[in-house]
Amino acid sequence: MVVEVLRLGHRGDRDKRISTHVALTARALGADKIIFTVEDEHVENSVKKVVESWGGNFKFVVEKHWKKYIKEFKKRGVVIHLTMYGANINEMMPEIKKIGRDKDILIIIGAEKVPKEVYELADYNISVGNQPHSEVAALAIFLDRLFEGKTLYRDFEDAKIKIVPSNKGKVVIRENQK
Amino acid sequence: MVVEVLRLGHRGDRDKRISTHVALTARALGADKIIFTVEDEHVENSVKKVVESWGGNFKFVVEKHWKKYIKEFKKRGVVIHLTMYGANINEMMPEIKKIGRDKDILIIIGAEKVPKEVYELADYNISVGNQPHSEVAALAIFLDRLFEGKTLYRDFEDAKIKIVPSNKGKVVIRENQK
Repeated sequence: MVVEVLRLGHRGDRDKRISTHVALTARALGADKIIFTVEDEHVENSVKKVVESWGGNFKFVVEKHWKKYIKEFKKRGVVIHLTMYGANINEMMPEIKKIGRDKDILIIIGAEKVPKEVYELADYNISVGNQPHSEVAALAIFLDRLFEGKTLYRDFEDAKIKIVPSNKGKVVIRENQK
Repeated sequence: MVVEVLRLGHRGDRDKRISTHVALTARALGADKIIFTVEDEHVENSVKKVVESWGGNFKFVVEKHWKKYIKEFKKRGVVIHLTMYGANINEMMPEIKKIGRDKDILIIIGAEKVPKEVYELADYNISVGNQPHSEVAALAIFLDRLFEGKTLYRDFEDAKIKIVPSNKGKVVIRENQK
């Protein structure tokens, strides 16, 4: 199962840090790729720097024709829009996991008001709670549940820096110390 | 079990939106209170507006003497610092849940570099993965696992607005429609 995240919309400076958190959360929790619909050099560089130091093959791409992208994706996978209006994640997750065994998953999260079309294009509109909170939180919980915590401590290929989990203090391994 | 979140540090404009997401995630996922160590009217107002419309008793407070606050808290509960350097959440969560049966929990998340003292004051330093991602994501996953998804769809007292989960479209109930 390949998991991609589509970050729909991005209002420049206003969303710079949230969008970076979205991208890094996608990577850390097990997604393979993030698609932005708006260029932002700052966000792109932040993400690429993390990949360079911390390893793995996480991809950052910009795709302005996002409707076309979604329609193409549907030929090989299932499209899930995360929204506070969506169906209960607690009830839907078993079905999503079953689908994920054979199909790729595209997760859509909006930065601003999401066009009605997205609700219609998506195979599922799913909520992570129906309270206003954060698209970063929603994405994190969705991926954590989808992967059942298994992605959190996986090894990243070609990492120049690694952390060894520790209850006290910081244990960091850098490439030249290996 | 009362759960509080201490947001340590906050760099004004730079952290405005992330800090708001931290606070709203704390509320939506089941925490009772957030403590900021720096005043920020914008964040405070955003959180208070959400509580007013969406209900519940979530508290927002500012506490500049955070070391004293942590030390006082330790008399009645356990202090957990979320950090990418910390021990593996997958391994630690059973122990944390057991403690939560009798004790309150204070979760600390830093905005910037966290002073060494925090690692020492905390009863546990726990990581949500050892990759750089987002304090919003870390808090969300920690709370989701602590409460086992049970807090996500709970009812908030005195809510003026409620959403009914739906796989297609938006179903919103406002007070005057009840």
